[in-house]
Amino acid sequence: MYNTKAYAAFSATDSLQPFQLDRRGLRENDILIDILFCGVCHSDIHTVKNDWHATKYPVVPGHEIIGKVIKKGEKVIHFNIGDIVGVGCMVDSCQNCSSCNDGLEQYCLNGFTGTYNGKDKISGGYTYGGYSDKIVVQENFVLKIPKNLDLAGAAPLLCAGITTWSPLKNWDIKAGDHVGIIGLGGLGHMAIKLAHAMGAKVTMITTSPQKGEDAKRLGADNVLLSTDKDAMKSASMSFDFLLNTIPVKHDANPYILLLKTDGTMVFVGAIEPIEPIHMGLLIGKRRHIGASLIGGIKETQEMLDFCGTHNITSDIELIPIQEINEAYERVLKNDVKYRFVIDMNSLKKESKE
Amino acid sequence: MYNTKAYAAFSATDSLQPFQLDRRGLRENDILIDILFCGVCHSDIHTVKNDWHATKYPVVPGHEIIGKVIKKGEKVIHFNIGDIVGVGCMVDSCQNCSSCNDGLEQYCLNGFTGTYNGKDKISGGYTYGGYSDKIVVQENFVLKIPKNLDLAGAAPLLCAGITTWSPLKNWDIKAGDHVGIIGLGGLGHMAIKLAHAMGAKVTMITTSPQKGEDAKRLGADNVLLSTDKDAMKSASMSFDFLLNTIPVKHDANPYILLLKTDGTMVFVGAIEPIEPIHMGLLIGKRRHIGASLIGGIKETQEMLDFCGTHNITSDIELIPIQEINEAYERVLKNDVKYRFVIDMNSLKKESKE
Repeated sequence: MYNTKAYAAFSATDSLQPFQLDRRGLRENDILIDILFCGVCHSDIHTVKNDWHATKYPVVPGHEIIGKVIKKGEKVIHFNIGDIVGVGCMVDSCQNCSSCNDGLEQYCLNGFTGTYNGKDKISGGYTYGGYSDKIVVQENFVLKIPKNLDLAGAAPLLCAGITTWSPLKNWDIKAGDHVGIIGLGGLGHMAIKLAHAMGAKVTMITTSPQKGEDAKRLGADNVLLSTDKDAMKSASMSFDFLLNTIPVKHDANPYILLLKTDGTMVFVGAIEPIEPIHMGLLIGKRRHIGASLIGGIKETQEMLDFCGTHNITSDIELIPIQEINEAYERVLKNDVKYRFVIDMNSLKKESKE
Repeated sequence: MYNTKAYAAFSATDSLQPFQLDRRGLRENDILIDILFCGVCHSDIHTVKNDWHATKYPVVPGHEIIGKVIKKGEKVIHFNIGDIVGVGCMVDSCQNCSSCNDGLEQYCLNGFTGTYNGKDKISGGYTYGGYSDKIVVQENFVLKIPKNLDLAGAAPLLCAGITTWSPLKNWDIKAGDHVGIIGLGGLGHMAIKLAHAMGAKVTMITTSPQKGEDAKRLGADNVLLSTDKDAMKSASMSFDFLLNTIPVKHDANPYILLLKTDGTMVFVGAIEPIEPIHMGLLIGKRRHIGASLIGGIKETQEMLDFCGTHNITSDIELIPIQEINEAYERVLKNDVKYRFVIDMNSLKKESKE
């Protein structure tokens, strides 16, 4: 067992606070990771607040983890002491079903084990995430981080990056395709960078005129204001693909009209019922709606390697863990460009005081 | 000009009644068809009642037309006098856009011309449909009917047949796939026959226990009662593909749960806003929603040839045109198995009296 330091919430209304917890001793395929950075995902806040009615307290959030290998089990073959590694949203799955065999552990037919608040398949209990100084993870769920990347900026690739990469790859986005990214937040800003690097013509679709300049800095070729009816009408039937990152219930019909015949809009944000879709808008032009959840381990590694080649990381604001509760408040007000990342050195210093 | 007999509605509240109309003289690529049979599609009723707010009166409905070539323009090359032919939902399109060039005239970027109530691209005015003794159609929109098929039963292939064939082919349904057909009406009964002939394992999904026996007669391997919560739960994640033929607003979420990971539900019936879709159900298993509108001319011919090979026609109730208004009442009560077809001999006799 490893006694480790973390920040945890103990109820839906509490602030996050210091917490001592036991990590399991190393099994033969496990890696002990010294955590350097951990991104702050909106899902962390949903879980802390029990918005999805499935939180087990105390909960230690964090599934955008970058760290260094400091110990490994005897059968670990792909990693060495000192390697810089990442851990994303999953730390286990059945590794035996058709989805797992296809490299799509996120759709494991027996359910994947979330990096935090996930039911541990072996030892029982619930997993603790990356707001911590160390974590133990089996090597099959550990990623290699390209050496050239800024490590703090790489943390959000493990969730925001793969969540947008997976649909762009699955729907085969390629150079010249006209791709619209709806919503400019943590997911949207990664989607712009990735789609642009894939060679797509990228249009940022937003309700906020003030986001236009930043969208272009991130790689968007154009900005389309969804509140401008004339502009929306002019853009009708001009998109091959739309990635909808809006995280809440909304009316998707105006966006459907932007799609060409056989075009697809993929939802990665809203995990709740959305406003009624007018099926005539789909039927009339054989338009498609898809959806996508994070990504598998193999494709996460491919995304990381691609980001290494193109030197892509997230735009972040680095914070000490002592500011995590203020950071949550700011995330809820959309006041972050575009991801908070915790410098875990702040936790380690605290633990020495 | 050809002065022809037809049945027309003159307002949204009127019954259909006899009507004399002028068909254009033959252009060089035109065919004059002596109509033998015409199917009765629910769209006919929507148009007569102006449910879609686009009806131009008088309207002569009918887009499931079977007839015989009795005259042809000088440049017609694919048809001869005496050929048994069909005309479906379209009689023209721009024949020059990317959709038309792909054989998908139903998604013509400049709009196809409907067989009735369609704006004529050349002569102006509005087209008149198949509740008539004759029709003039350019040969590019005329289909060949396999000689072995029952001609009355073949009429509904031109709309109900192609509307279900096109998505089954576009989503590449093949032997062994588990296909669910939702709703057993004109479209659903054709979908069962076609999917069964393609070698799929077909499950009829219906709210009506009494429809089960008939579904099996039509080719369904299984029947799933959507009102049986236990059966629906047992069937979750068991379908590769669902064809949703429900023609009105409904809650599609219980059906989404039936889809496997990466499975698709395609809507061909409801052309209105449906109940809110819970995007979490799509995201969690990368499920897809598609939609499809009739089919192109090339694929309609392929469907007809397939039906010839497998001897597939619609189950119909043959009526004289004088009973069309009663037939409409019965369609509105779902009291037909599964399509009314008008024997146009009844109109020709009337015209002689």
